[in-house]
Amino acid sequence: MEKVFSSGLSSVLSGGADTIVACATPAGRGGLAVVRVSGPATRALAAAVCPEVVMDQGWRARLAAIRDADGALIDHAVALPLPAPRTFTGEDMLELTVHGSPFIVAAVVDAFRAAGARPAEPGEFTRRALANDKLDLVQAEAINELASAETAAQARMAQAQLDGALSRRFNELKEELVELLAVLEGGLDFVAQEVALDEDAARARREGAWERLQALLATAAPGRRIRDGVRVVIAGPPNSGKSTLFNALASEERAIVSPHPGTTRDLVEVVLEMGGVPVVLQDTAGIGDTDDPVEREGVRRARGATATADAVVWLWPADGGRAPDVPEVTGQVALRLRSKWDLAAARAPEDGWMPVSCHSGEGLELVRRTLAEAVAEDVADLGGNAAIAERHRTALERAAAELEGLRVDEPELAAEAARNALDAVRELLGEVAAEDVLDRIFGRFCIGK
Amino acid sequence: MEKVFSSGLSSVLSGGADTIVACATPAGRGGLAVVRVSGPATRALAAAVCPEVVMDQGWRARLAAIRDADGALIDHAVALPLPAPRTFTGEDMLELTVHGSPFIVAAVVDAFRAAGARPAEPGEFTRRALANDKLDLVQAEAINELASAETAAQARMAQAQLDGALSRRFNELKEELVELLAVLEGGLDFVAQEVALDEDAARARREGAWERLQALLATAAPGRRIRDGVRVVIAGPPNSGKSTLFNALASEERAIVSPHPGTTRDLVEVVLEMGGVPVVLQDTAGIGDTDDPVEREGVRRARGATATADAVVWLWPADGGRAPDVPEVTGQVALRLRSKWDLAAARAPEDGWMPVSCHSGEGLELVRRTLAEAVAEDVADLGGNAAIAERHRTALERAAAELEGLRVDEPELAAEAARNALDAVRELLGEVAAEDVLDRIFGRFCIGK
Repeated sequence: MEKVFSSGLSSVLSGGADTIVACATPAGRGGLAVVRVSGPATRALAAAVCPEVVMDQGWRARLAAIRDADGALIDHAVALPLPAPRTFTGEDMLELTVHGSPFIVAAVVDAFRAAGARPAEPGEFTRRALANDKLDLVQAEAINELASAETAAQARMAQAQLDGALSRRFNELKEELVELLAVLEGGLDFVAQEVALDEDAARARREGAWERLQALLATAAPGRRIRDGVRVVIAGPPNSGKSTLFNALASEERAIVSPHPGTTRDLVEVVLEMGGVPVVLQDTAGIGDTDDPVEREGVRRARGATATADAVVWLWPADGGRAPDVPEVTGQVALRLRSKWDLAAARAPEDGWMPVSCHSGEGLELVRRTLAEAVAEDVADLGGNAAIAERHRTALERAAAELEGLRVDEPELAAEAARNALDAVRELLGEVAAEDVLDRIFGRFCIGK
Repeated sequence: MEKVFSSGLSSVLSGGADTIVACATPAGRGGLAVVRVSGPATRALAAAVCPEVVMDQGWRARLAAIRDADGALIDHAVALPLPAPRTFTGEDMLELTVHGSPFIVAAVVDAFRAAGARPAEPGEFTRRALANDKLDLVQAEAINELASAETAAQARMAQAQLDGALSRRFNELKEELVELLAVLEGGLDFVAQEVALDEDAARARREGAWERLQALLATAAPGRRIRDGVRVVIAGPPNSGKSTLFNALASEERAIVSPHPGTTRDLVEVVLEMGGVPVVLQDTAGIGDTDDPVEREGVRRARGATATADAVVWLWPADGGRAPDVPEVTGQVALRLRSKWDLAAARAPEDGWMPVSCHSGEGLELVRRTLAEAVAEDVADLGGNAAIAERHRTALERAAAELEGLRVDEPELAAEAARNALDAVRELLGEVAAEDVLDRIFGRFCIGK
């Protein structure tokens, strides 16, 4: 596949780029709305639609009348001309803060269309920023993650990523690979001249890149937990009160997504925010509650859910005799609860088990707090840093696979592997990017971003 | 009741006013959001939260880091310092355009709260603009109408009102009343000195004010139609296809409010946009369709609806014999339709009746167009002007009642009446306003306006 350098792309795009317009603030009714324009014709469009704007007076706001194609007043806006190149997109831009009415916004966008602008595609402002090297692809992705964040943890991580926390680490990895490639290619030149490759230097570079790769890949799991939610499964025997606990937790915490049947018909889950962290709480009730052979599949699924969960809340009813041992899974948090404790004959539960009664409410608050703390701890190892996302993991694993097989005593193959690894990292940063990859990424953005 | 002049109020408010902060763009996810701050402490708050902002460099935007109370970065914003008095509120203001995430917005607002700002009440920015004579109460109301407009006609009228179209006419009326009062009070002074009142001048002023009042009051009806919708009732005998036509129209046009049972249990209505104008379409089906005595009430209601409607669509089925005469109401548009025309034996309907069949679709488009045109004409007499709203009508009617009884040959009583009429107009403009009136008006605003 032929790769196109975005910096090469940039000049093509900017040179022939049309000028785009869109509302950048959320749709709906409010005090204000911001319409932005970007592209080489911004100056001409401003002269047609709001002639009081002086593009040469960059970053100087002023009140300006906005008029439609017939010269009728649409609104008075606070107009901010932003001349290239020191703008978000790197192009000439104009930001108009108008009254927050959908009709005003539509009329303003129409006025710019009538003057020759094109309505922006989803994410097109950010895509132009990428093309003009104003940010890299990893930061561009963060802009979308920031806007769609539903928990404080997601927003914090997206902000760190936008600020370059992840890009810096990718760039360090890239530099290491560039150096590795230089050593290996230097060796190739020397081979022709019968001079030996500096194998130690190559090994040191390979080692450095490998360690950075592994450190980054290690953030995939907490990253997944912050982005998609910490997966907490409620498990236990029939009639141990799983659904009751599920409902008690689901009704108290802020639901991000209301309860709905899960991807598999029998699993019911809800996405909650607990202590700023998204939690996918899963109820396995109704699974394997009978001996019916068709329920076998359900039991298998419940086992699967507990095996792959980030945390399992194990229930054993107070009237169910002595609590059994529960399976231990590395890296998995386990909470052991003696449920229906209002029915308990004993004075205290077994070691490591907490008493709880959804009926009387006893212990419920402690369960909630313990769970929230466990969940927060589960993502805390990131510090304030950003973690890699799925697209990054795939690219880094490709790079890792190349490095893994790289043998410095086979310089030509090694150089090829290093080049492939480097390509993977540069694609990650958007320095080399196929159009379809960019289409897919920016297609998820909303219009106006 | 003691009245307070808003200009007097203004200095009190600004002197002791605290500084407010709120997000001014609609809630939700978007590319950008605008947070604004207004009040005497804006400068100090900016120094604490985003120290790169230079308040003295008014209207000069710049990129600025926004930090929370612990100094942690929240976002990079485009910051626009707006020093008093040339601002929307008339106070020192700061507008920050941040990334459009609810978490960022909340964190920015929190940072300003931590530094000493108070979250703004609904409409508080506009209320301060009123207190500082940046706009009058009629324009302030237009800001809210503009944001909540659901049709193009509503948005256009609100924009004209915000631009001062209505305020100018109220002010002309006010000037006329001020002159009338001057003549009358001059007469009073002369009476003491035994010099005669210029009765002709007084009568001319009274006549001038009266004509302006009547012209304004005449806009109440089209104003009501633009604000609340043109009321269109579908009427006809049982089984003439009223509900079928209702559903056909309701499903084709853009519904502003989805079909719902009306205020009275039996009337079903839907609010549509037809040709940019809001239309409340009412179906009287089910009313009086039987001889059941309890249905009498229904029949009475249907008659009431057709009597008070702006337009009535009369249906008479094709198979129902010759169409009868329909009641004519002054100022009411009447559309006469021979429905179920696919069942028609005749070649053409009676004069003034249009054939329509919801079954075959025949004539439906013409009905829709004719109705949309009739509806548009019903509000067209306003031109591009603003029309008075309910609050204005009440005040103007009070002023009219005072003028009606005013006799220039009773100078003392006449001066009292003129003063009362003047007070009513000044209350209208918000120059004299009781706090509870303002509370009620601004309570309907959203936060951030």
